[in-house]
Order: sequence, then structure tokens, then C-alpha cells
Amino acid sequence: MAELVDLRSDTVTRPTAGMRRAMAEAEVGDDVYVEDPTVRALEERTAALFGHEAALFVPSGTMGNQIGMRLVCEPGQEVLCDADAHVVTYEMGAAAAIFGISTRTVVSSGGRLDAGQLIEQVRPKDNWHLTATAAIAVENSHNRGGGLVQPLDQLQALWDWSRQADVAVHLDGARIWNAHASSGVPLSTYGGLADTASVCFSKGLGTPVGSVLVASAERIATARLWRKRLGGGMRQVGVLAAACLYALDHHLPRLGEDHEHARLLAKRLGVDPSTVETNMVVLEGIEAPLVAEAAKARGVLVSQVSASRIRLVMHLDVDRAAVERAADVLAELLDR
Amino acid sequence: MAELVDLRSDTVTRPTAGMRRAMAEAEVGDDVYVEDPTVRALEERTAALFGHEAALFVPSGTMGNQIGMRLVCEPGQEVLCDADAHVVTYEMGAAAAIFGISTRTVVSSGGRLDAGQLIEQVRPKDNWHLTATAAIAVENSHNRGGGLVQPLDQLQALWDWSRQADVAVHLDGARIWNAHASSGVPLSTYGGLADTASVCFSKGLGTPVGSVLVASAERIATARLWRKRLGGGMRQVGVLAAACLYALDHHLPRLGEDHEHARLLAKRLGVDPSTVETNMVVLEGIEAPLVAEAAKARGVLVSQVSASRIRLVMHLDVDRAAVERAADVLAELLDR
Amino acid sequence: MAELVDLRSDTVTRPTAGMRRAMAEAEVGDDVYVEDPTVRALEERTAALFGHEAALFVPSGTMGNQIGMRLVCEPGQEVLCDADAHVVTYEMGAAAAIFGISTRTVVSSGGRLDAGQLIEQVRPKDNWHLTATAAIAVENSHNRGGGLVQPLDQLQALWDWSRQADVAVHLDGARIWNAHASSGVPLSTYGGLADTASVCFSKGLGTPVGSVLVASAERIATARLWRKRLGGGMRQVGVLAAACLYALDHHLPRLGEDHEHARLLAKRLGVDPSTVETNMVVLEGIEAPLVAEAAKARGVLVSQVSASRIRLVMHLDVDRAAVERAADVLAELLDR
Amino acid sequence: MAELVDLRSDTVTRPTAGMRRAMAEAEVGDDVYVEDPTVRALEERTAALFGHEAALFVPSGTMGNQIGMRLVCEPGQEVLCDADAHVVTYEMGAAAAIFGISTRTVVSSGGRLDAGQLIEQVRPKDNWHLTATAAIAVENSHNRGGGLVQPLDQLQALWDWSRQADVAVHLDGARIWNAHASSGVPLSTYGGLADTASVCFSKGLGTPVGSVLVASAERIATARLWRKRLGGGMRQVGVLAAACLYALDHHLPRLGEDHEHARLLAKRLGVDPSTVETNMVVLEGIEAPLVAEAAKARGVLVSQVSASRIRLVMHLDVDRAAVERAADVLAELLDR
Repeated sequence: MAELVDLRSDTVTRPTAGMRRAMAEAEVGDDVYVEDPTVRALEERTAALFGHEAALFVPSGTMGNQIGMRLVCEPGQEVLCDADAHVVTYEMGAAAAIFGISTRTVVSSGGRLDAGQLIEQVRPKDNWHLTATAAIAVENSHNRGGGLVQPLDQLQALWDWSRQADVAVHLDGARIWNAHASSGVPLSTYGGLADTASVCFSKGLGTPVGSVLVASAERIATARLWRKRLGGGMRQVGVLAAACLYALDHHLPRLGEDHEHARLLAKRLGVDPSTVETNMVVLEGIEAPLVAEAAKARGVLVSQVSASRIRLVMHLDVDRAAVERAADVLAELLDR
Repeated sequence: MAELVDLRSDTVTRPTAGMRRAMAEAEVGDDVYVEDPTVRALEERTAALFGHEAALFVPSGTMGNQIGMRLVCEPGQEVLCDADAHVVTYEMGAAAAIFGISTRTVVSSGGRLDAGQLIEQVRPKDNWHLTATAAIAVENSHNRGGGLVQPLDQLQALWDWSRQADVAVHLDGARIWNAHASSGVPLSTYGGLADTASVCFSKGLGTPVGSVLVASAERIATARLWRKRLGGGMRQVGVLAAACLYALDHHLPRLGEDHEHARLLAKRLGVDPSTVETNMVVLEGIEAPLVAEAAKARGVLVSQVSASRIRLVMHLDVDRAAVERAADVLAELLDR
Repeated sequence: MAELVDLRSDTVTRPTAGMRRAMAEAEVGDDVYVEDPTVRALEERTAALFGHEAALFVPSGTMGNQIGMRLVCEPGQEVLCDADAHVVTYEMGAAAAIFGISTRTVVSSGGRLDAGQLIEQVRPKDNWHLTATAAIAVENSHNRGGGLVQPLDQLQALWDWSRQADVAVHLDGARIWNAHASSGVPLSTYGGLADTASVCFSKGLGTPVGSVLVASAERIATARLWRKRLGGGMRQVGVLAAACLYALDHHLPRLGEDHEHARLLAKRLGVDPSTVETNMVVLEGIEAPLVAEAAKARGVLVSQVSASRIRLVMHLDVDRAAVERAADVLAELLDR
Repeated sequence: MAELVDLRSDTVTRPTAGMRRAMAEAEVGDDVYVEDPTVRALEERTAALFGHEAALFVPSGTMGNQIGMRLVCEPGQEVLCDADAHVVTYEMGAAAAIFGISTRTVVSSGGRLDAGQLIEQVRPKDNWHLTATAAIAVENSHNRGGGLVQPLDQLQALWDWSRQADVAVHLDGARIWNAHASSGVPLSTYGGLADTASVCFSKGLGTPVGSVLVASAERIATARLWRKRLGGGMRQVGVLAAACLYALDHHLPRLGEDHEHARLLAKRLGVDPSTVETNMVVLEGIEAPLVAEAAKARGVLVSQVSASRIRLVMHLDVDRAAVERAADVLAELLDR
């Protein structure tokens, strides 16, 4: 039987031989003492890529997002975002549970940012009665939105408004690399439209572990304390950072391939290709459990987002042949 | 100059002579030791009114709502509600800040409950990735919704669904008395459609202080611990409970009068009377700061909800003559 | 049968006729809008008594202590105190649970402040690894310490040290009135040795409800927000504040009487009178449950602090005759 | 100039060539989906070593300790421990900040467990007023205690008492390997005297990153949710777990060497060798900043625990020659 094609998520990628070599050869130090040169290199490079002063390596996108929001929001204040955002959907209520941050949401059109819709919901800070809106969180590309790329004009409009309104913007950039590869908008442009941003190396970029939070130097100094408090302070973690540096060199340039694969798969499965903006294909209006089960029996793993919805994610470990194989299996299943 | 007509809120009422007498004569004990007979009487009576096993006196509606939600939601789980609900808007992010409860919201049509719209957003509990929806909070009557009364069929639909879905329902019944007086739906019916409910005596019922949380006996025992932890344990608080008992006898029956006043005022100000369901009138599309300022100069206090919106609230301290006076002042201002 | 003599706590006092009259006649307003003149008068008077800029009425000593500590300690920082302090013993873990404040303690000699012993435990703030000590909490008089009065020289030494060490001092002054009445040290002196202080009117001063937090004007403005968040914002609460003002005039001057009663009782029960510094007598080395039960059967209520320890508390509702009666009952029981 | 001798901490070790090879060759999967075979192997092996049902890999000892305590303590309850314990000293107030857990402490004799001293401080759970003691935390070996090994009879006495008292025991076993190597007490014995235990691989065992929490299967299932919430869920983290498995095989057996080095160094520096129980030497009564500075200038890094105290830690990267070199440098400095 052929190898499994795992389209559940781009988090399932395994490190390549080259990446493993980079990790094995990494120069390391004790990062709790801020002495790991590879971590430092990664932090500096990532900060520069996004045009921020400083950066901090964290064990997960969840920790990056949560600390990022904490940097711009006090306990009892609120973060606004869409109701499908990763930060309120897939992070186990962490903002409230560990930081006392309130969240309020709007149901958006498939996750696509409508700056006006969010701004309308902002509550002022100088009021004894109201829960003050301290920040707005934006996810780009948007996971539950099927990998959609946020419109630059909306990001810009939100940012411009936020400057005069004294409301911060946090970017959940777990897949900002895919947004960038798809839109051609520079990473620094995206970085320039956020006060804090969390970016992940363990998704499209294919590393085993690792996310980086970028912000001002002062905020990153505070973030370091919160990372320790949350148990995210690690020691010779350069072994992981080395993989991230390797990914910037070798995997960032190839993301377009995943997007091409996604379009190819969409076409084969009768999905409107205009809905495929990055590395995800969404099948809707199907009996998701049935399809998922049958596909698994034929060697194709998919992700059920709901009872009628399946998500297919392209990544480093899925080559053209695997895409074709998955297309064959799924097309046949959908045909019935 | 005539006395001020204070239409900012129904919280501004002052105790009447009769109520003061009841307070001065109250039999009291140490309620932290559960020995205050007047508090006990109020708790028992309120529990019975709403058809619940037990009740707990708390210093404010905020504490009633927050503990009520905590009883049915663990840290890291979420409560769903509309984005204008008092519990997320006017309670200073307390659910997150003090209890670690996450909140997610939908923007509703003026606060009116649409059960389906909320149910669609529920996230399951048996999942490692998702923030689990533990409860849904409903506000009745709805403050930011201009005092609207929630449709009984929607409350019933939500309740029926919630039983099979293992999701709790919390009722923010700060003004449930007004909903009841307007709709004729018995308090016990409203109480029967919620796992926990917080009701206030310091609004339409005109007492100085006091809210009561109703729930099962087991939950109220837990609530007592949380009340102590939050600093809500008070001693000879029967002096306040006596006012609440008095209000049930003397002020609950007269709420219809406030609603009549609201309709009268609406008519005088060209507001569609069908939008007036209880004791509030909302003026929209006006320059709120200007109108508020000018009205104040003429002895009428109003509440600015936003830059273009004013709320007028009828209550015990606003008699027919005062309503007429306010109508004269506001009609003239709106005319310009 | 004679009336019960309730020596369990000074919190059990019932308002006198005069106090009830003051409450019934109180001028009130909506204190959430900061419009209650009686509350304002109480806050101003209390602030002045303790030599602080501002004050805030709160429903309980627990809320006063907790907000007071939050004003000088951020989440993740720590408050140091003795292991028997009310703030860590009787407040249900509130500092941690609602504010994320860590506590670390030393086992002191019966609650008596030894400044050096606490100072030795202070951890610096400018360190990535350590939980920073932000504040030290002192209780005066000390409840579990049998009402002992903290030595002024130790308070002064702690204060002097704290100024150069940038560590705040919070005073749990629930019974500071008793300390003052016993030591003769002015309230303003005690107030001058703390950054924040919570004082209670519902204990020795005999009001039904009410505590006041004093601090700088800036801190009290923040405290007002936290009070609302915790559900401590109340409306026409001047009815309670009126009792507190009455108590300052009529009950503060008579506290010496309670202390005299305590010494009298101690003498009758063979307790070393030098251990009686204020209104409490502690019986040690006895079978507490047995004695408590037997005393109750004879109309004397006492408080079991542990299996071998009973606390007897003098207060407004225990006159000389009642003390004699209690002495008779207890002496006979202890004799056996 | 000779290479630095870094005696600051056993956390500074760099992975050996063999360990790097094991990491590079690790079989991995997505551990958030519980599909990493190497992580699973490590968790199973560690659980078995300590005689527990299950285990969970976490990024740090802080996360292991904090989740471990959360498993046995609800928000608002308290954990008792000594005032120098790592969990209250070096974890940034995490128990309170992220979990709402209260802590109360006793000042022990240099960190050595005295079961009776802790038991005396336990507060019962069935009480409305008291902060309930849910758990006691014990650190073994004890970091601030200079690496001392907890007496087995005290551990046993605490455990026996805890069973009838319904109080849980959490073991901070960051350096339990050293305790075991020194005392000869089996790991399973230590594991059998705790409900939850956190053990670290990044200290004496010399891995770059990694700790494991052991407990019952049910508790570990809950721990997995909390790990995700804290941002500790990582993907192909088998690359780190491989190092831990390697360390169990290759580094655990050699810990005695570190202990021997410590005794050797102590002897050379005039420190009472009976105070050296594992891999640490403590210099007391010295001008710590001066000595540390001068030693650094001579290529020996040490850790200042206080103004008069220095800690020297032996580990994998300090061989006999390095110990001798450090001894020469430090002996000369202390001589002056």
C-alpha cells in the first residue's frame, strides 16, 4: 500500500535530512540566560523581516499569540476579533484563563477582515462602566477561513484608524508566510501594520517546533518574563531555532508550490479555485465524517472542520504525486 | 427651578419613606454565618418566585451575573452571548479577569435573542483543540437593546436545545421584572428556562442595593464560597434585604406605570411606540452630546449611549408630571 | 432563659436604635455615579483620619484588603505576610484567585510583627528568575494573634526600610480602631506607615456592613474600577455609610470598654491578662469542641480556632452583665 | 586562555555528539495529535520509572510544576511549601498568576523537609472562611538548599499523613535524579510518595530541553489540555524527547561523578563536605559580587544566590580537570 497522504494540517511535516543536519550542528547556549547564539540569530532575523525592533522564540503559536495580546491588553480589558479566529477558537480560552483578558467577537464573512465591522464594536477606555477595548487581533492567512489572505486595504484601514484611536493591533501570523507568498505583499509591510505579531515555523515552513513573537524591544523584554511564567523558557533551544533558520532559507521560497498544489486539487474536486488563496482547500456541504472515514481507508487523511465541512492542507510532505493520489481518492468519493 | 428629572437610569431611585421604615425595622443577624433572617426570607422568596431551589443575596448585579456564569463555566471554557450584553459590555471584563472565563459573542439585531444564531456558534466540549462552549448568557429585558423583552419562543428554543447539548443557560435578569410586567410571562417561566439567574432589586424595583442569584441548592452552596472570595460577604445585611422584600410587595406591582410613561414619552418625541417594550425610550440619529447638555441645562438628565444615541429610563422617582416636563424639554430640543 | 451571649466575633453586632435612625434618615444618591453624599462624607472623613488623600467604600474587609494589595502588586508578583494573616487565611485565596497575586509567608510568633523576619524574605524586582516581592501586608490588631497590637517600632522599622527598598506596605486594619484604642497611637500615625489600608466598620464599630480602603487619590481611582469589576459597586449605599459615620461618633470612643471587658473575662478565666491587648481572649490547651458545645448549651457562644483553642470576642452587644454571665459559665466549664 | 568553567547551573550543559546524533535520527510525529512515537516512548518510560500510570512531556520544569500543582489544587485553594521552594521562588508567581492557586509557606531549615512543620500549617477544606490547603509541594533535591536530599522518613511521614488528610503531595523533582544517585533510594520509591511529580532532563541529565510530568492517567489527560492552554503543545518534539531517552541511558548512570566533583571542590574550598549531598557546593559568608567578578575574570563562572552566598554546580560539561582548575581559582580568591 502506498504511503499515507496526510492533508489534515501543515503542522504534521517531518524535518528533512537537511534540516536535521542543521539542528544537529547548531551552536547552542542557555537561552534562559539569553546565551543561545542560534536563538539570538533567529530572533534578530525574524524581527528584521517584519520590521520590528525585537523578537522572542516561543514553543508554540498559542504562546506567541497569548503573550502578544497580553503585551497590549491588561486584565479586564478586551481584545476584539472575529468569532472564528484561532485565538478564540483553538487556544483553549487561554487569553481569559491565564491572563484575564476578555474577548468579544463579530461573526465575519468566512474570516475575512472588514475593518469597519470591528471598529464599530470598539468600546472606549476612559469610562467607568465599559469593558475597554485595548486591542484588535487579526489572523492572516485565516485558518478557519480556509487559508484566505486578508485584504491589504482593510489591514491598512484598521491600522490607520488604530493609531488615532489608541487601540493596538495584534497579528496572528501563524501562516503569514503563506499570505505573503500568495499576495506578494512584503513581510515587513504586514509587520508594519501590527504592534505585536506571532509567526510560526512549524506549519508551512516545516520545522518540528517553534514560533517567534515580534514587537518593540521594551515589549519583548516584558514578553520574556511572561514566557518564563508560562513555562516557555527553554535551555539549549538553538537546536530548534536552527531548524527555523534553515526553513527561512530553504522552505519559505517554496511555499508557492503548496499553493499550486491546492489549486490543482481544488480543480480536480470541483471547488471554485477563487476560494483557494493559499495552501488550503475546503470541501463544503458534504457528509464530513463519512468522507473522512472513507478517505482514510484509502490512505488519505483529511480534517473535519464541522459535520459538513472538510479541510485539505498542502505542505512540505505532500508532493505533486501525493496531491494527484489524494485527488483521485477524493474525487471518486465525492462523485458518489 | 423645578426638581431635576433624572432619566439616566432606573438605578438612581432613592428609597421611599415606607422602604426606609422597613429597613430601619429589619430583623438582622450575621449573614456570613447565614444567620440573617431577613436575608434568608428574601432568598427563599426569590428562589420560589423563579422556581429554583435556592438563592443568594449579592451586593450587585455584576456579582450575581459573574458568579452565576462561574457556576456553569470552568476557567478556559467560554460563555456565548450577544456582543451588547451587559455581562460583556458593562462588567469590566470580570468574567475573564476574575474567573478566567472566555467570552465569544455575536452581533445581534439590537440585542434580540435569535437562538439559532447563537447555537450555530457553539463549540463542542470533547475536543483537545477547541475552546469549549459551556454556557450561553441571555439578558432579559435587554439594556442596550432599549429595554426589549426577549421572545418567549426563542428562550424556549434555546432552552430545549441546551438540554440535549449539555450547554448551560444563564439569565441576566437585572430587569426581568420589567420583562415580566410587559409580557405577562410568569417569573417562574423565565426562571424555568435558565440554570442560573441573577435578578436586581436596585433598578426598576427601587431599592438602594441588592441582587439575588438563583440556582440549584448545590450551586448556591458553591456560590456562597465565591461570594466570600470576591468580597461580597456582608454582615447584618438584612437592612438591605428588607428593602428588597418591601419592593416585591409595593414596587413590583407598579412597573406597568413606568412602561406607560415610556410609551407616553415616546409618542411625544416621535419615537415609534412599538420600539418601547418596557421602561426605556431610545432616541437615535441625534447629536447626543448636544442634546444631553441642553437637556441638562433645562433640568432633564439623560444617558448618552453613543455619539448619536440617547437613552431615557422611567422609574419610581419619575411621576407622570415629571414625564410631561421631560417630554416638553426634549421635544423642543429635538424640534430644532 | 437569659439571652445568648455571643462571643464568637465582633461582627455579630446588631445596629442600635440610634444607628438605625441615622441609616433611615441618610441622604443618598447613586454611588456608582459617585453621587452619594453620605458615602462621600464617609470616604473623606476616613481618608482624613488616616492621613491619606482618598478613600473608597467597599462591601467587606476582604474586598478592601484584596483591592488594596492589587493596587501595589501586579499579577505574578508577591505579597509577603505572616502565615496567620487574615489575607491568606480567611479570604479564600482571593489574592491569587482573582488577582493572580502570589503570597509567601513566614510563621511568626503569634502574629506579632518582626520586621527583620519579613525583610529577610524579600526577593528583588529586577531579576528574570525570581518572583518579585512587591508588597508586605501587616494586620493590626491581629485576629489570629488574639487581637494583639503590632509594636509601633516594628511598624516604623518596616516602613523606613520599605521606602528605600521600593516595597509597598498594605495595612489590614480591620480592627485598627482597637489597636488605636489600646495603644493610644493616633490613627493617622498608623495610616502614615502604609501605602494602602483597609479598615472595617462592621467589627468593633458595630455597623451592619462596610469597610473603607484608603490610599492616594490616583490609587483610589484605580480601586474604583476594580471594585466595579468585583461586583462591589453599589447604588444608594449611603444607607450603610450613614451607619459608619454614626459609629465614628458614637462607638469609636467606647472601644476601651470592650478591652476592659476582655481583661475582666481573662482574669476570671485564669488567662494571663498581659496576653489581652484589645477585645479578644484566647483559651488554649483545652478541648475546644467540648467546651464550645457545653458553653452553647448554657447560652454562651464561642469561636473554635482549632481543636485546642477558643476565641472570645468582646463587642458592642456584650455589656458588663453579659461578660459576667459568660465568665460564670466558662469558668465553671474550665474548672472541670 | 583556557575554556570557561561554567559552574552557574547544571542547565548550561550542551548536548554531546552522541545526544545530537540521537536527536537527528529521532522518529517523530505531530505530538499535538499524540502521534510522536519518541515522545510517547519517553512518557511511557518515565511514568514506569516513577511508578505512575502516565506522563506528559512539557517544555520546562516550571510548566511541569505548575500543571502538576493545578491538577491537585483548584483556584482559590492553597499549596503549602517551604519559603525557598523553586515553585514559589523561581517560577514568577505562576501558580497564582496563571492558575489562581494561593501559596503559603514556612521558612524551613535550609530547605530540609520537616513534615510536622508543614502539617501544622494545613487548613481544612470543609470551612466557609478558610483558604483550604489542597496540596503540599516538596522539592527533592532542593535547589536553594544547596542540593540537599530530602530525608526519606520525612517524605514517608508526609505521605502517610496526606492519605488520611485528603491533601495531595506534589514533587518538584527537577533534580530527583541527583537525589536518587546520592541516596540510593529508587526513583519508583520517590514517585510512590507523590500524587504528581515533575522531573527535568535539562539539568543534571544534560539535554537541551525537556521535562516530564507524571501522574495518574486521568490527571495526565487533564494536564494535556492545560499544556495546550499554556502554549506548551509542540509538534515533532520527538527531536527533544530523543535526547531525554539518550540521557536516561547514558547520563543518569554518571551522576555520581558530579557528586564526587562537588565533594572534591568542597574539600578544596574548606566547605564542610557533609553539606554537599549532590552536585552543588555553597560558599557562605563571603562578598559574593566580588568573588563572582574575580572568578569570572579568571574563567570560572559562578552563581550569586545572595550578597553573601555563591552556588557552584557540577554537571556534564565540567570534567575533573575543570573542577581542579575552578578549585585553584576559587581557593586563591577565598584565601585573600
